[in-house]
Amino acid sequence: MSIILGIDPGSRITGYGVIQKEGRKITYLGSGCIKAFSAKKDGEEEDFSQRLQTIFAGVSELIIQFKPELFAIEQVFMGVNPGGALKLGQARGAAIVAATNNGLPVAEYSARQIKQAVVGTGAADKEQVQHMVKNILNLPGTPQADAADALAVALCHGHSYDSLNKMVGQATKTVRGRLR
Amino acid sequence: MSIILGIDPGSRITGYGVIQKEGRKITYLGSGCIKAFSAKKDGEEEDFSQRLQTIFAGVSELIIQFKPELFAIEQVFMGVNPGGALKLGQARGAAIVAATNNGLPVAEYSARQIKQAVVGTGAADKEQVQHMVKNILNLPGTPQADAADALAVALCHGHSYDSLNKMVGQATKTVRGRLR
Repeated sequence: MSIILGIDPGSRITGYGVIQKEGRKITYLGSGCIKAFSAKKDGEEEDFSQRLQTIFAGVSELIIQFKPELFAIEQVFMGVNPGGALKLGQARGAAIVAATNNGLPVAEYSARQIKQAVVGTGAADKEQVQHMVKNILNLPGTPQADAADALAVALCHGHSYDSLNKMVGQATKTVRGRLR
Repeated sequence: MSIILGIDPGSRITGYGVIQKEGRKITYLGSGCIKAFSAKKDGEEEDFSQRLQTIFAGVSELIIQFKPELFAIEQVFMGVNPGGALKLGQARGAAIVAATNNGLPVAEYSARQIKQAVVGTGAADKEQVQHMVKNILNLPGTPQADAADALAVALCHGHSYDSLNKMVGQATKTVRGRLR
């Protein structure tokens, strides 16, 4: 049995999703968003370091609450400008150190890998991801887009983790076969 | 009296410098580098999340050791590609949350501002920064480049912090003058 925390990082909204996996059985534990900005008036300076602290404290709090054994995070889209990539990188760094600081191993998946694992095609759109996440986890309603993306990365990790374990199992069998 | 921790962030090497400021008197407390990479062979995968943890733990350790009241970090160079900006952003995010998580206010300065404050010109080169840092702090030898940059950002913050305090002081005097 594994509890998996999935994170979809963003400098303003960081989505999170928590699932529990027991063999083939997947249970939804929770999902939502960490909103790392306050309602500021035009021209007022945003304190970006406080946003990062909100993300770090938010993810740390989720780890205390759900006690996950696994942590997976979406690789961010690279087609942005260096300024955007820098901000996103800082947000991602804050989320990752919340995991590593609590001793969690960090797995990373590209948007394509996540869509492939959840929808079956790497070219799926946001609505398809939301729809499949709702179906797989048997949710009563459609989760918000960032929360759905975070649940999708958790599901993707659960899937890959299984495949990896199976592969390790098979490899061991083969070696045993050769030794006999 | 203020102890200032300056950080020059990098995804591989993060420079740090610690100074103490008492009025116009500046004392060197320490400097060095957090090396966030291990000696890996070609083709071996680097665990980037562990690098971020090394930076976060390293800066946290410095805060415990030196007990700074102020924290200043260099704004990173924007002319890099999005992939480089993302990595650098993550490293920067890890360093910043180590500060905010310990309740330290975070100040940011551009390379130009730092050079202007320490050398007197925003166009100074690395050697001039190292030379001036050595002179101002009366060091027996030239500090390593990343450590010198970190000491320079700490000196820049000490300088700006003073100017700010003076301005606040003058503003208060002016208001008093008008009230009399």
